[in-house]
Amino acid sequence: MKVGVVGVGHGKFGRRSDATVQELAFEAFRAAMEDVKNLERKDIDSVIIGSSPEYHKQRSLPGVITEYIGMNDKPTWLTEAACASSSAALRSGYMAVKSGLHDVVLVLGVQKMTELNTAEIQSLMGRVGDVQWESIYGTTFPGYYALYANKHMDTYGTTGEQLARVAVKSHHYGAQNPYALFQKEITLERAMKSPMVADPLRVFDCCANADGAVALIITNDKLAKKYHDTPVWIDGLGSASAPISVLRRPDMTSIPSAVAAGKEAYKMAKVKPKDIQVADVHDCFTIAEILAYEDLGFAKKGQGGKFIDDKECYIGGKTPVNVDGGLKSKGHPVGATGASQTTEIVKQLRGDCGKRQVKGAEIGLTHNVGGIGQYCFVHVYKR
Amino acid sequence: MKVGVVGVGHGKFGRRSDATVQELAFEAFRAAMEDVKNLERKDIDSVIIGSSPEYHKQRSLPGVITEYIGMNDKPTWLTEAACASSSAALRSGYMAVKSGLHDVVLVLGVQKMTELNTAEIQSLMGRVGDVQWESIYGTTFPGYYALYANKHMDTYGTTGEQLARVAVKSHHYGAQNPYALFQKEITLERAMKSPMVADPLRVFDCCANADGAVALIITNDKLAKKYHDTPVWIDGLGSASAPISVLRRPDMTSIPSAVAAGKEAYKMAKVKPKDIQVADVHDCFTIAEILAYEDLGFAKKGQGGKFIDDKECYIGGKTPVNVDGGLKSKGHPVGATGASQTTEIVKQLRGDCGKRQVKGAEIGLTHNVGGIGQYCFVHVYKR
Repeated sequence: MKVGVVGVGHGKFGRRSDATVQELAFEAFRAAMEDVKNLERKDIDSVIIGSSPEYHKQRSLPGVITEYIGMNDKPTWLTEAACASSSAALRSGYMAVKSGLHDVVLVLGVQKMTELNTAEIQSLMGRVGDVQWESIYGTTFPGYYALYANKHMDTYGTTGEQLARVAVKSHHYGAQNPYALFQKEITLERAMKSPMVADPLRVFDCCANADGAVALIITNDKLAKKYHDTPVWIDGLGSASAPISVLRRPDMTSIPSAVAAGKEAYKMAKVKPKDIQVADVHDCFTIAEILAYEDLGFAKKGQGGKFIDDKECYIGGKTPVNVDGGLKSKGHPVGATGASQTTEIVKQLRGDCGKRQVKGAEIGLTHNVGGIGQYCFVHVYKR
Repeated sequence: MKVGVVGVGHGKFGRRSDATVQELAFEAFRAAMEDVKNLERKDIDSVIIGSSPEYHKQRSLPGVITEYIGMNDKPTWLTEAACASSSAALRSGYMAVKSGLHDVVLVLGVQKMTELNTAEIQSLMGRVGDVQWESIYGTTFPGYYALYANKHMDTYGTTGEQLARVAVKSHHYGAQNPYALFQKEITLERAMKSPMVADPLRVFDCCANADGAVALIITNDKLAKKYHDTPVWIDGLGSASAPISVLRRPDMTSIPSAVAAGKEAYKMAKVKPKDIQVADVHDCFTIAEILAYEDLGFAKKGQGGKFIDDKECYIGGKTPVNVDGGLKSKGHPVGATGASQTTEIVKQLRGDCGKRQVKGAEIGLTHNVGGIGQYCFVHVYKR
């Protein structure tokens, strides 16, 4: 049995003080229902919510959301894997369909971060690192990724300019994405002169907290064509974990869970890195995108900086990456991010991306990292 | 393909200030590894954690736990469905094996509640109800269940004495369970004279917050006998949701998600309520157990009070229920509770329960309610 995505619905990312978390979920759900044909609520067997619950005053998100979107009495629960929560939901949805337990599953990534203020978010973020040994000393998320950046610079000569080029690319494509938080181009100079957050990461090296939701409808190959003319199949799934404690990482120039997850997904889909025609990777910081080029085998080890210099990750290059603007310009509503990546790849493989379209793309990939790399979920998709 | 439980490991429930959340998880994991044969860490393909993350200072529980128990680089994520979080994990583990994605999955329910004080827990608990319309007015968990109790008393004449009898039974069996928080008998008089919490629920009508962890190892029928002589099969799975808002419930004398989940599980397992020889149900409050008798079809509608009067839920009765002591005497570490129920049923069907053994039990059931009934997970097991 093949399992595929037949419907995608992407809500607007940003500071969404106009909507509660259940309203955000409904916005995405409605968009997904408009994306499919012949599908009614009663045809959906289960609702799997991807989210990080700690951000919300409302607990029991699956409870409040299934009620609000009119999906009672269907089974529902939440998956959490920090910033990869909705990729865990997609993996769960795949398993639900593949196992035969369900025919159609709604995967809903949702997060409302701006109920909290920046200091509260910063405190929460730090606690996805090891609390007992690390975050009690005041670690922050930019601080963790600065460790990666410094080590990569030190080992391979990667530069702040190369980091900034990643941000320039993200904003270039984000300017063309109506769902992105920041829809404007930036110059290399502006990025490089932006204030320092955690040396060497500057403001434009960091993605922004955001609110938003994304819905995916997945089903098996018997039903898929009924619901969409161009199903996009999930052909490869990879997932792995790595020590949460940076003390236990042998090497800070790579995310080992991403390397392992990538290998597993490639193997299952019977493809190689060079076969990937469009990819959405986890660029919570610009250095994370450079690590992804290497961890996924798009660039050789240590050559991630050159990969962006040579524009190999632009449309027209070897492997177009984050041509939806990435987390950097879309914003990063943590629970919705994985499903947002999937939406972009599904649209690319359908050929629906207009000016941002990678022509003739038939094989795509998503790479969603949780926390500081303690988990990674990679999916390979084919038209 | 059949999917079954081959290993169970139950940690001690209680105020566990001696252990961090990852240490609690390890205690249960080690016990499960001692319960199986021929199984090494490398044979386990994935770790699914059931927990409610909001109770812990440490976020990213799957990250910290997989590292601590030595399971890197295996895939991991967390499932959350309030008090039914580890039943959602079991359902996910079932799907993972049944889909063929994994052969062996570790399901780990874990919760450390006592990092917080009682007032903080009470506030968190209230927020698993509808925050926008209800919990802002100060709803509490006992308050929600008192609504059920009052309505059931009003409609069917159920009495405070019948509620208290449920507690007496729980403590009777809990006194024989070495993992229980309260291992002592209580008298009916003591229960009925205990202080009022939320009229008509008294102290002895309420389960206690606790810390604890439980591990389950599940696999397919090709491998099961290799790892345990007596695998216990998951033959029926049912899950459903209901409106989180009590305003939208048509009837407060029943939990509709439990009724629907029960029917689905019975149908899949091809059994009827009368076939269930031993059951573990969600008795967060004594009234919840009485509702469960009726919602699952052990007793007729409105006859739950009589069911306990007649001791039909004792060993020797029609359907022995919570002969491990239930949440009432074991304590209720929310994320671990579902897996704890499964452990009891697995041990009963193996015939390993000593004095508490239901003789010849071959078919068992677990019933795990999330929140105030917005979800329920029912599993039917066979030897």
